[in-house]
Amino acid sequence: MIVSNFRIRFLPDQRETVADQRQTLLEAARQANVYVGAICGGEGVCGKCRVIVREGEVEGESTEFLTRDEIRRGYVLACQVYPRSDLLVEVPPESRLVGYEGIGRDSERFRDFAHRGAERPPTELTPVIEKFFLVLPEPTLDDPTADQERLLEAVSKKCPGPLQMGLKITRELPRVLRRLQENRSSWNWKWDGRVTATVGLRSEVNEVLCVEQGDTSDRSFGLALDVGTTTVVGHLVDLTCGTTREAAAKYNSQIECGADIINRINCARRPGWAETLHQAIIRDVETLIDDLVERAQVGRGDIHCVVAAGNTSMLHFLLGLETDLIRLSPFVPVATSPPPLRAAEVGLRIHPRGILYTLPMVGSFVGGDITAGILASGMYKSDELSLLLDIGTNGEVVLGNKDFIVACSASAGPAFEGGSVSCGMRATFGAIDSVRIFRHGLAVSATTIDGGPALGLCGTGLIDALAEMFLAGLVDRSGRFQVNRACDRFRVSEEDDRPEFVLVPAKESGSVRDVVISQADVENLIRTKGAIYAAADSLVQSVGLSFDDIRKVYIAGAFGNRLDISSCITIGLLPDVPLERVEFIGNSCIAGAKLVMLSRSMFDQVHSVRDRISYQELMVDPAYMEKFTSACFLPHTDVSRFPTVRERLDKRKSKS
Amino acid sequence: MIVSNFRIRFLPDQRETVADQRQTLLEAARQANVYVGAICGGEGVCGKCRVIVREGEVEGESTEFLTRDEIRRGYVLACQVYPRSDLLVEVPPESRLVGYEGIGRDSERFRDFAHRGAERPPTELTPVIEKFFLVLPEPTLDDPTADQERLLEAVSKKCPGPLQMGLKITRELPRVLRRLQENRSSWNWKWDGRVTATVGLRSEVNEVLCVEQGDTSDRSFGLALDVGTTTVVGHLVDLTCGTTREAAAKYNSQIECGADIINRINCARRPGWAETLHQAIIRDVETLIDDLVERAQVGRGDIHCVVAAGNTSMLHFLLGLETDLIRLSPFVPVATSPPPLRAAEVGLRIHPRGILYTLPMVGSFVGGDITAGILASGMYKSDELSLLLDIGTNGEVVLGNKDFIVACSASAGPAFEGGSVSCGMRATFGAIDSVRIFRHGLAVSATTIDGGPALGLCGTGLIDALAEMFLAGLVDRSGRFQVNRACDRFRVSEEDDRPEFVLVPAKESGSVRDVVISQADVENLIRTKGAIYAAADSLVQSVGLSFDDIRKVYIAGAFGNRLDISSCITIGLLPDVPLERVEFIGNSCIAGAKLVMLSRSMFDQVHSVRDRISYQELMVDPAYMEKFTSACFLPHTDVSRFPTVRERLDKRKSKS
Repeated sequence: MIVSNFRIRFLPDQRETVADQRQTLLEAARQANVYVGAICGGEGVCGKCRVIVREGEVEGESTEFLTRDEIRRGYVLACQVYPRSDLLVEVPPESRLVGYEGIGRDSERFRDFAHRGAERPPTELTPVIEKFFLVLPEPTLDDPTADQERLLEAVSKKCPGPLQMGLKITRELPRVLRRLQENRSSWNWKWDGRVTATVGLRSEVNEVLCVEQGDTSDRSFGLALDVGTTTVVGHLVDLTCGTTREAAAKYNSQIECGADIINRINCARRPGWAETLHQAIIRDVETLIDDLVERAQVGRGDIHCVVAAGNTSMLHFLLGLETDLIRLSPFVPVATSPPPLRAAEVGLRIHPRGILYTLPMVGSFVGGDITAGILASGMYKSDELSLLLDIGTNGEVVLGNKDFIVACSASAGPAFEGGSVSCGMRATFGAIDSVRIFRHGLAVSATTIDGGPALGLCGTGLIDALAEMFLAGLVDRSGRFQVNRACDRFRVSEEDDRPEFVLVPAKESGSVRDVVISQADVENLIRTKGAIYAAADSLVQSVGLSFDDIRKVYIAGAFGNRLDISSCITIGLLPDVPLERVEFIGNSCIAGAKLVMLSRSMFDQVHSVRDRISYQELMVDPAYMEKFTSACFLPHTDVSRFPTVRERLDKRKSKS
Repeated sequence: MIVSNFRIRFLPDQRETVADQRQTLLEAARQANVYVGAICGGEGVCGKCRVIVREGEVEGESTEFLTRDEIRRGYVLACQVYPRSDLLVEVPPESRLVGYEGIGRDSERFRDFAHRGAERPPTELTPVIEKFFLVLPEPTLDDPTADQERLLEAVSKKCPGPLQMGLKITRELPRVLRRLQENRSSWNWKWDGRVTATVGLRSEVNEVLCVEQGDTSDRSFGLALDVGTTTVVGHLVDLTCGTTREAAAKYNSQIECGADIINRINCARRPGWAETLHQAIIRDVETLIDDLVERAQVGRGDIHCVVAAGNTSMLHFLLGLETDLIRLSPFVPVATSPPPLRAAEVGLRIHPRGILYTLPMVGSFVGGDITAGILASGMYKSDELSLLLDIGTNGEVVLGNKDFIVACSASAGPAFEGGSVSCGMRATFGAIDSVRIFRHGLAVSATTIDGGPALGLCGTGLIDALAEMFLAGLVDRSGRFQVNRACDRFRVSEEDDRPEFVLVPAKESGSVRDVVISQADVENLIRTKGAIYAAADSLVQSVGLSFDDIRKVYIAGAFGNRLDISSCITIGLLPDVPLERVEFIGNSCIAGAKLVMLSRSMFDQVHSVRDRISYQELMVDPAYMEKFTSACFLPHTDVSRFPTVRERLDKRKSKS
């Protein structure tokens, strides 16, 4: 076979690479370090890797994910086509990696958020990394205490308990504590003694990570990390005041090896691929750090710790631990309480002696994400019975109070994170996060996170859209589109002859394409919400209680800011409890990671909380499957479970 | 300048190098990795780097250290001559690095020795590094505990207290606990669970250093290290039974930068030289390890710890810490309690996660050598008042019991280690370690450590020789040679017209040269013993006591086995106490290091012992100078202090 090489240039980044005719455009883009969204890992099944070929020839299958008009305009799926000449390729906005999550901007909001459930207000911060400005007295003949002991003594006064200190820091100490004075050909030592010591919490002791001249105690940062199956989120936290300075998110690039965890674990069995998957997640975190430090104008060396939360498999990938045993009975993780370790050891380039903390896991199916959520909600110390729904690629459900905690996990799928939905996207620029439908679908009002043109729908937008379509009678209780309704927004998909609903036509919002919801999307969303509701239902029943006993429902997830609780109840994602009992706590992984980062008491408590969690394996339970089937309706087979929804439906019906 | 290169071959090693006309033979030898003894660091003042030019031409100064006959036979001082052609150079035995110290062979003796002062007999070993063979139960659905937690739980049962474990070990755990079974194109995990965990003591916690498949608990070694100013000694200790397997010693090759510590600290001020001095001592230890592992047939990876004792400067050089402040008022060390650290961090190639422990120091002038000596003697826990004399390049003197400990330091010089004495040498092959003189010097009986030809005198030989010459009337009380005595062993040195005493003529022992003691040697020895006696005298007086109050005198030092206590008293090195009160405890640095290595209770105690030591700065005390002057006689100006010596002198006098 003769291999031909072609020059491929990508817009708008103006990056270039050389690829041969056996490489897909997606591979070429990766090679050029150009991000093109691809949920399915290049299998051609997610339709997310849309690019526009501006110049040159490609070869490849046509696809159901593109309309005839799009194909005419040069759209291709990057994972399905191969170059046949030099190319100029544009990556349109909906396929690009853009900015931060909507949730990340308001630092006021974050300060409140980070301290939800914390023992003390932010004024009593006790972060795992602390900086102390010290003025050490000059040694004398009466007090010739060694440099290291002099320093440690001063640190001990501020930070009790055993201390350790590495050789490298000790070696530098004489020069940090003194200034070298040159006179003639020689030099002399001049005592200074004003230094800042950075102290970090290790397993049982505190470690002096760094000693610097002068007072630098106003500069210290930590990275709270949510290592999600679909999305990786990082928040840069100012450890001196507890506020969040910046937030960033990106899709987990392990997605190339499959959208779900089991596919990735299988992928890691291939020789060399475990390391590839580990490196992929490290690169993602490094990308987030690049973004965060640039926006916050902070040096990487000012970041002294990373606190990571995530499910057991993702934390294993992060640490480079074997994942294969997680998927095999009896489902044994390598480690559930990884001790604090040097972040550099996994390749994270923060301060060279900065520490990586991992939230403790319970087992293969209850990870540090659940521990984080329980911590963030504060349910573990409440008298009242609380339910926590963490809606990510896996839906985790926790029920409990200060006396007991039970948890289970449901394979919900990434629909609410923008995966497996035709116009789904992360809660970022251009994402529709709220939808209202009036006059039986003749009028639609949609807002985007940034107020700009709509590119797609994030989780809150999808929930709203489904709830509004249902209330407007555009879908029936089983989720079927009511195309016979007098609504010109319905049209039939060219590809599969199935109907789709045009939420925002491109021409209306000034966007590049119509934002639609298809019949298949609605089915996906209903399965996802059904899985979560059924898990909650099973868990509540398993302990002999009912939804009425629950005093608080916490919803966590990577939604936009404007999650409409009422919409969540309308579609049957949440049980029909009084609205005031429901609270959206945002990304509870990040929130839990921040609590541990900012409070040593939380750091201590997280392990005892972890030890109290008992896992319920509902997925092999036939009763769960029955509950799931019943929950795959709007809002549920048994409408009597949702009296407020019935009331609203009745109200609308009587109006029409 | 035109540079000419010459090939230089060294015998008996057959090693070769290329050197130019500006390099001394000593430099060429170092380049060829051939050891040539040189105490003064190539200054031409010690006369130890004798080599024989067998073929070729050299240019350089003639020297007072060589006789006319030796020069005729081709002897040169390697540091003083430069090649003018290709050369064949022989390094004679007296200049070579040979084998082990005499003290190192008898492991039975070492076992007793290592445990002197230990809380328990060797059967109750609690070494700082322990290996545990574990059989971990196979995980089940009812007990899916993670690999790391399963291991740590089992280790905790054998080794209580907090445990830590590095990421690398955790990563390997699944494969160590299981065997991979290949079948067809796939592979499966098969539980094994039989592993050996190596656990080492860190500052406040225990660390799992290594986990291996199967039972390797019978193989674990530690290196006890005496980092002396003149000599570096290493003992390889079997941690499973506490016995010493091998011992090795070599001159500290920092000697190239000066024989005493102040010169070396000054040398380290030059740019880059601090690192050079650090590397020199690391290379020396590496050389010892090479020697030890080869002789004991042990892998470097089986050595899990190094426990180092030495004075404060030497331990600073070992760890690569700044030494300059030690010599400057107020004499501040960088660290006096360096925490256990990874040996690899200073470049020692033992087990990759092996730990380097350093005995704690008190200050710039009371180092880990004194702490070691106090520990080894057991004086710190005795009711009885004890005196400890540690005779190295510096003489350290300690007085105390379980209630108080005072210590001081005297610049004794390296005479008893073979330095600054014409035929002085380390206690190794060919070293005379006992001397008897009969018939007023007409007959001499001398034994060497190994029974072979005499090459020189080690410390015990020198003390014996001086005592015997004194008792035989060959030197008077001020140390002057009595050349008018009818003894044909006296001759006049060709170089300086001063007399020397031929102890063993070369032709008598089959050796390569006469073993002599010169007038200058005797003066050196008297100054050395005077410094130590005066220090002891001052210390005893400073606490208002006298030598009569002392119930136990411990002598420590790198002597041969056969230290004659009576000879020590005869020359006035020791006070004239009853012989049964004096005990030679050998190398107390090594002994102290072994105690700490083999007993966790000792490891704990060493710091509290350290905290109890108070240092007396006698060297600036005018009373000390007076005592020193008085002590520079045989045995002392005031003979009434030495009644048994006077008695023996009287007896001999009456005989003659």
